[in-house]
Amino acid sequence: MTPVLTVFARSPDRGRGLARDMRVRWALEEAGQAYEVRTVTFEVMKGPEYLARQPFGQIPVYEEGDLVLFKSGAIVLHVAERFGGGLLPVDPVLRARQITWLFAAIDTVEPPVFDLDLVDIIDGDKPWFEERRHSLETLASARLEALAVALGDAEWLDGAFGAGDLMMATVLRCLAGSELLGRYPSLVDYVARGEARPAFRRAYRAQRALFEKSQAD
Amino acid sequence: MTPVLTVFARSPDRGRGLARDMRVRWALEEAGQAYEVRTVTFEVMKGPEYLARQPFGQIPVYEEGDLVLFKSGAIVLHVAERFGGGLLPVDPVLRARQITWLFAAIDTVEPPVFDLDLVDIIDGDKPWFEERRHSLETLASARLEALAVALGDAEWLDGAFGAGDLMMATVLRCLAGSELLGRYPSLVDYVARGEARPAFRRAYRAQRALFEKSQAD
Repeated sequence: MTPVLTVFARSPDRGRGLARDMRVRWALEEAGQAYEVRTVTFEVMKGPEYLARQPFGQIPVYEEGDLVLFKSGAIVLHVAERFGGGLLPVDPVLRARQITWLFAAIDTVEPPVFDLDLVDIIDGDKPWFEERRHSLETLASARLEALAVALGDAEWLDGAFGAGDLMMATVLRCLAGSELLGRYPSLVDYVARGEARPAFRRAYRAQRALFEKSQAD
Repeated sequence: MTPVLTVFARSPDRGRGLARDMRVRWALEEAGQAYEVRTVTFEVMKGPEYLARQPFGQIPVYEEGDLVLFKSGAIVLHVAERFGGGLLPVDPVLRARQITWLFAAIDTVEPPVFDLDLVDIIDGDKPWFEERRHSLETLASARLEALAVALGDAEWLDGAFGAGDLMMATVLRCLAGSELLGRYPSLVDYVARGEARPAFRRAYRAQRALFEKSQAD
């Protein structure tokens, strides 16, 4: 049963691979699992048929026969368990630690990074913009500092590359080229190691090709 | 090996059970698994010894012999797998769907609820407070609306009570008594059903007793 992934018809990141389907594509590529893609417009995402599968009107949705999942974190865990690819260690202790990093990516590092990425667009004209931006940058910086300390001079966050690294690297990629991420050279290198993985490159090329096709249509 | 949970010495929620150790206590109680508690002050949480176990200086930390975990989502999943208690179905399809709701709680519903909970404290004296609060409330309301639709007239989000419900109910509890949550009576009832579970009540009483003791000391 080939999984089907629902993604943006025209990704607002303009093909930079920052939308959340990228995480699932990458996980499927690490596992060597083929998948199909279904595209949705923003209009379709707000319709009842889509909302029945994804109550919050977001992408990605993952379908595998009768199984319908949403939330990229849950999907990556499912893919790792269903198709392997080394994203989750077999040893239960190592496995639990890898999952901890996956949650740290989504729940600790991503919130300020995501808000910072959006603040210029959402709050650029608001009276609280400067203050809000500064407070987000302070929080994001503290989280990156802590992450850099935890990583130390290791290649990955906990032993071999795993689901936690996959998720953390996709979160940090939102800051690529920023002065903020540049303060932490070990994190810049960490992201580059993730992006150099053949599975990442295949996933990136696939979403990029889709974006370019959407521009040509 | 009795798990040890690290929690606030004096919870800033003043014993309302809103700190994130509550999720883990509840999960352990559902599984009927005894645990010990270690308390930390904010000062200790910023020290090198604590940061070696929790790089971001937060609570809870979970220890079980040599295994050290952080992030309440990861810990709840671990407890569910390690000690049972019915929080994760055995069937892999139902299990994946329950985990989806756990991520939806942490990654979709909690961010605006958490920001809204903090805005009064952090931005209450700012000239743009009302406008900022309104914009957060709009986002939180949209998420609650979608959640209420997904729940429908069911008792729990996906079949029997599970880890996703446990996490969602703890997130919604932050809005207890608010006008915002009151707009969604089915969600108010959903939280009440969670709070009525014997395991919740045991967990609540344990953290409450600790807070009261800290006030008496």
